[in-house]
Amino acid sequence: MALDPARTVAELRELRELTGDANGAQRVAWTETWERAREWLREKVAPTGAEHEIDEAGNQWFTLRGGSERAVLIGGHMDSVPNGGWLDGCLNVLAGVEVLRRIADEGTPPVTVRLVDWADEEGARFGRSLFGSSAASGTMADHEELRLLTDADGISLPAALAEHGVDLDRALEARRQLDSAAAYLELHIEQGPVLESLDLPLGVVLGTFGVERHRITWRGQAAHAGSTPMAERRDALAGAAKLALEIRDIARRVGDGAVCTCGGVVCRPGIVTSVVETAEQLLDQRHLDADKLAELLRQAKEASARFAAEERIDVAWERIWSIHPILFDDTLIRFCDEAIVEVAGASHRLPSGPLHDAAEVARAGVPTVMMFVQSLRGLSHTKLEDTKEEHIELSVAALDRLAAKTIDWVAGGGGR
Amino acid sequence: MALDPARTVAELRELRELTGDANGAQRVAWTETWERAREWLREKVAPTGAEHEIDEAGNQWFTLRGGSERAVLIGGHMDSVPNGGWLDGCLNVLAGVEVLRRIADEGTPPVTVRLVDWADEEGARFGRSLFGSSAASGTMADHEELRLLTDADGISLPAALAEHGVDLDRALEARRQLDSAAAYLELHIEQGPVLESLDLPLGVVLGTFGVERHRITWRGQAAHAGSTPMAERRDALAGAAKLALEIRDIARRVGDGAVCTCGGVVCRPGIVTSVVETAEQLLDQRHLDADKLAELLRQAKEASARFAAEERIDVAWERIWSIHPILFDDTLIRFCDEAIVEVAGASHRLPSGPLHDAAEVARAGVPTVMMFVQSLRGLSHTKLEDTKEEHIELSVAALDRLAAKTIDWVAGGGGR
Repeated sequence: MALDPARTVAELRELRELTGDANGAQRVAWTETWERAREWLREKVAPTGAEHEIDEAGNQWFTLRGGSERAVLIGGHMDSVPNGGWLDGCLNVLAGVEVLRRIADEGTPPVTVRLVDWADEEGARFGRSLFGSSAASGTMADHEELRLLTDADGISLPAALAEHGVDLDRALEARRQLDSAAAYLELHIEQGPVLESLDLPLGVVLGTFGVERHRITWRGQAAHAGSTPMAERRDALAGAAKLALEIRDIARRVGDGAVCTCGGVVCRPGIVTSVVETAEQLLDQRHLDADKLAELLRQAKEASARFAAEERIDVAWERIWSIHPILFDDTLIRFCDEAIVEVAGASHRLPSGPLHDAAEVARAGVPTVMMFVQSLRGLSHTKLEDTKEEHIELSVAALDRLAAKTIDWVAGGGGR
Repeated sequence: MALDPARTVAELRELRELTGDANGAQRVAWTETWERAREWLREKVAPTGAEHEIDEAGNQWFTLRGGSERAVLIGGHMDSVPNGGWLDGCLNVLAGVEVLRRIADEGTPPVTVRLVDWADEEGARFGRSLFGSSAASGTMADHEELRLLTDADGISLPAALAEHGVDLDRALEARRQLDSAAAYLELHIEQGPVLESLDLPLGVVLGTFGVERHRITWRGQAAHAGSTPMAERRDALAGAAKLALEIRDIARRVGDGAVCTCGGVVCRPGIVTSVVETAEQLLDQRHLDADKLAELLRQAKEASARFAAEERIDVAWERIWSIHPILFDDTLIRFCDEAIVEVAGASHRLPSGPLHDAAEVARAGVPTVMMFVQSLRGLSHTKLEDTKEEHIELSVAALDRLAAKTIDWVAGGGGR
């Protein structure tokens, strides 16, 4: 049975019929629709003879035993956001199924090959993403905090998990799944506009961005819009406006793919007849290089102090969240580049803005790489999410080549 | 009985005890506390022998008949916002009472002198300010709209007025009160920082600002903060930020006391992981000169179009409200300047940002002027509102001089 990328497109459509509605995909983790999708997946994989297992964190594994215990992993996630797209997460899995079929058809592989369907990548129901992969990587922390999470109906995370046979207290036992992992591969839609703007179907992902996320509070003085001369004002919004513009220059100066976003400003009192007393500004800065990420933050803080002085207002920074950049494996990046060039003629290297299960696996020390396939208009997490069928087929073919190169490498002693 | 400005301070304190609480003044129009304040006022004025009358709009008049029907009016308002200050509105009235006492004591004045306590200047309960004075000036329009106003408890404006003996359908009959008005004088706290910053107790008000008030909507494209390169973004907040800064340069360029305020920006989706798709910005522009006000607006619109092009986003303007500048009478401005110099040694001419009952009277064609007394820290509409006692006393003395000059002028054929 030769690789048949067109079958992947047909199966993606079948899954959409089974688990979507007029508003999009509804495979939210820890729901019946998600279980239906996972059962359908088991039926699809069964003919390959791969062994099936669900681990302590709810991750679903399909294992094709090879000449060695050392394993090449291919991953994805069947869960979606509510009203999601037809590709995010499940393309990764179904492309992996097609690769598994090709390998199984050729007989026992030299090393073990495993397909994993991570549990609850999106965190749509409880606001906690990368659930299954962070359990497997051992980075899942703060069980007490997880225990307190509830969904919109007040159902707790532990109760919802129990309904699906998962005991939160034992989730970290899923770590043993990575003991034999020599390498990890993941295909994903880009969810951004870069490949489309370059007119390229496929790209190699260098790693996931480090993120610095802050809330910046500017404090000036409320004053009547009619009776306060311009020179007497201490306008909190002026600080926020200057910084909202300055972060773009900072991103340009630091360069190398830096992105800085001001997602919102909340003004108080926020009425037309008053100078703004308090402006709360959200800032998100990302870079693939830890030093450059630190430089983005340093320059923004320095600029904010300058603006505060200019405007005679106060500024305070509060970190909301941060994560270090996670770099993928150099050898696997090279293999991925080669695979893409063989299939599509040209490749492109780019960072990933969003986090992915692959980042968790990389943090656990497993050599990892991701491949991106072009997203139309950069849209995801909406039913408008789309990718050209010919690009989906190219992505399956390229993932297959990448898997073949990786298996050879691991068989020859490469990988972890 | 000589003018006794210290008595005004004592009476302001007495009124505060009678109609305030720990949170400040509670003389909201169309309430029992307001009625109590108005009754107390009648008792204070009674010894002067002035005739008392409440007109069809609820305005309270005290008339000291003189040698001529032609009348010099002194005005203010007993109503306050909830949790208001001890001076806003009632200082004007009580200073007028003291002037009335001095005039009454001297015998029949050459022209009629009237003190008016306007009904519902603040509009605190129904959101409709300048109720009584706009009825008297005839500018009150849109009875249908007024009829639909309700307070926080769902009580309609007509029902609340009826409880205080006012029939909304007859309110405009109050216009006859201005038939004999030759001139109108009003003292008020500044409610801004100008006189304090100049270390001057008193100032002459040149008129009330014209106002252009707009909602500006910027539309870009929501995009993932991690996966969207800087050059691909269409950030609605960038337009709003540029304009929030530009309006200050525009105010400086147009000059002559121009003020421009961006009171708030509302961002959507307003989350840390997304470029801003829509930014709704509030803009308030004021000038005493109609042409310069138009220029402020023209330059802001021109700048917004330039910013929209630079950022590849859309911009739309919607007028919320506007009013023409209202200029006070040149002769009365001169009298007011002289009165202030005689009492305090130095005067200053400034525009009024907030609207006042005086603006309504001026719109009706009655020669009008206002005098401002310094506000500490520019605060009003809060229990923190304050003015030094010595400045309150100077303001009563200066209003008295202004009234004397105005009476002589009207007696000699000046005024309307």
